[in-house]
Amino acid sequence: MEKIESVLSFIVEIEKLKGVLRKTRPCALPRYENSAEHSWHVCLCALMLKDFADDTIDIDRVIRMLLIHDLGEIDAGDTIIYASETAENKAKEEAGVKRLLGLLPDGQGDEYLVLWQEFELGETPDAIYARAIDRIPPLLHNLHGDGHSWRDNNVPKEKVFGLNSRIEKGSKDIWRVLKGKLEEAVDAGLLN
Amino acid sequence: MEKIESVLSFIVEIEKLKGVLRKTRPCALPRYENSAEHSWHVCLCALMLKDFADDTIDIDRVIRMLLIHDLGEIDAGDTIIYASETAENKAKEEAGVKRLLGLLPDGQGDEYLVLWQEFELGETPDAIYARAIDRIPPLLHNLHGDGHSWRDNNVPKEKVFGLNSRIEKGSKDIWRVLKGKLEEAVDAGLLN
Ligand SMILES: [Ca+2]
Repeated sequence: MEKIESVLSFIVEIEKLKGVLRKTRPCALPRYENSAEHSWHVCLCALMLKDFADDTIDIDRVIRMLLIHDLGEIDAGDTIIYASETAENKAKEEAGVKRLLGLLPDGQGDEYLVLWQEFELGETPDAIYARAIDRIPPLLHNLHGDGHSWRDNNVPKEKVFGLNSRIEKGSKDIWRVLKGKLEEAVDAGLLN
Repeated sequence: MEKIESVLSFIVEIEKLKGVLRKTRPCALPRYENSAEHSWHVCLCALMLKDFADDTIDIDRVIRMLLIHDLGEIDAGDTIIYASETAENKAKEEAGVKRLLGLLPDGQGDEYLVLWQEFELGETPDAIYARAIDRIPPLLHNLHGDGHSWRDNNVPKEKVFGLNSRIEKGSKDIWRVLKGKLEEAVDAGLLN
């Protein structure tokens, strides 16, 4: 029974992700998104777009990766991606992920730490696809939300196109569609 | 490209689940939980507790089931489980799930409708386990949150023990642990 108690303490502890706020507002909601609901949303994005991945991927591994990909923010907090993914912040996140997964019994967390590191490195087909998908919801939030996060954080269009071309590494077709929408946003003055 | 556009419209539409509020507050948060963040949380519960399932389960199917299990609430709203799972409400939820999955291209949603229905029926090992897991977070919220939802909704202990014995159908060991915690809650006066 002690093992179950350990998993339950993990389950309670990861709830804190529901209190980590991100920098965009979900379409049609007046408040900022939290990283827990974001994690759910990207899992369904990945699942429903899986046939557009350019490489062969294991969608079940991708979903597990996305379920845990933001756990590091519980201890480190969310930082806007355009601001920079610093080594210091990444180290803080990794320490946090280790602490949380360490709550699980019998080294059960080890495989998830490896999966989290694979996502962070972004070199395997699964990680490349997962990281591509992770970029989609915040773009949609801005596109459907008057570019609020681009403007509030003074993000120039060069940065938006540059960083989000990460989507292209996972799926040329998805990037083509989203790039078209970004260009329309520039024309409409949402993005400068 | 039209197919990708259709999936994107699905992705935008399901965001509304982030605005559907449930009846419990996450551990350590002062606000009610929404069904999107709940969906993320139950997926990780299911994953980390999978070895305690009594039956042979396909955890990847279970996770897909749990990712979509609450989509019906977007059109039907969340109703407290103790209040009753009426046929009328279930029909409303199913119509809502059909509407949402119908946004996906080429009948891509059909397999997820079948999965949603399997969850609702709760007869296969995957559905039995998924439904058992779905009960765990609200119990933890009450146990760690002074029984707030039991009290606010006047839920007597007989109903709590009765309905949550659904957990036992998925895992006798998990139920034994949680039943012990519920008995402690009765002794402590959180549950009457
Ligand atoms: Ca539920």
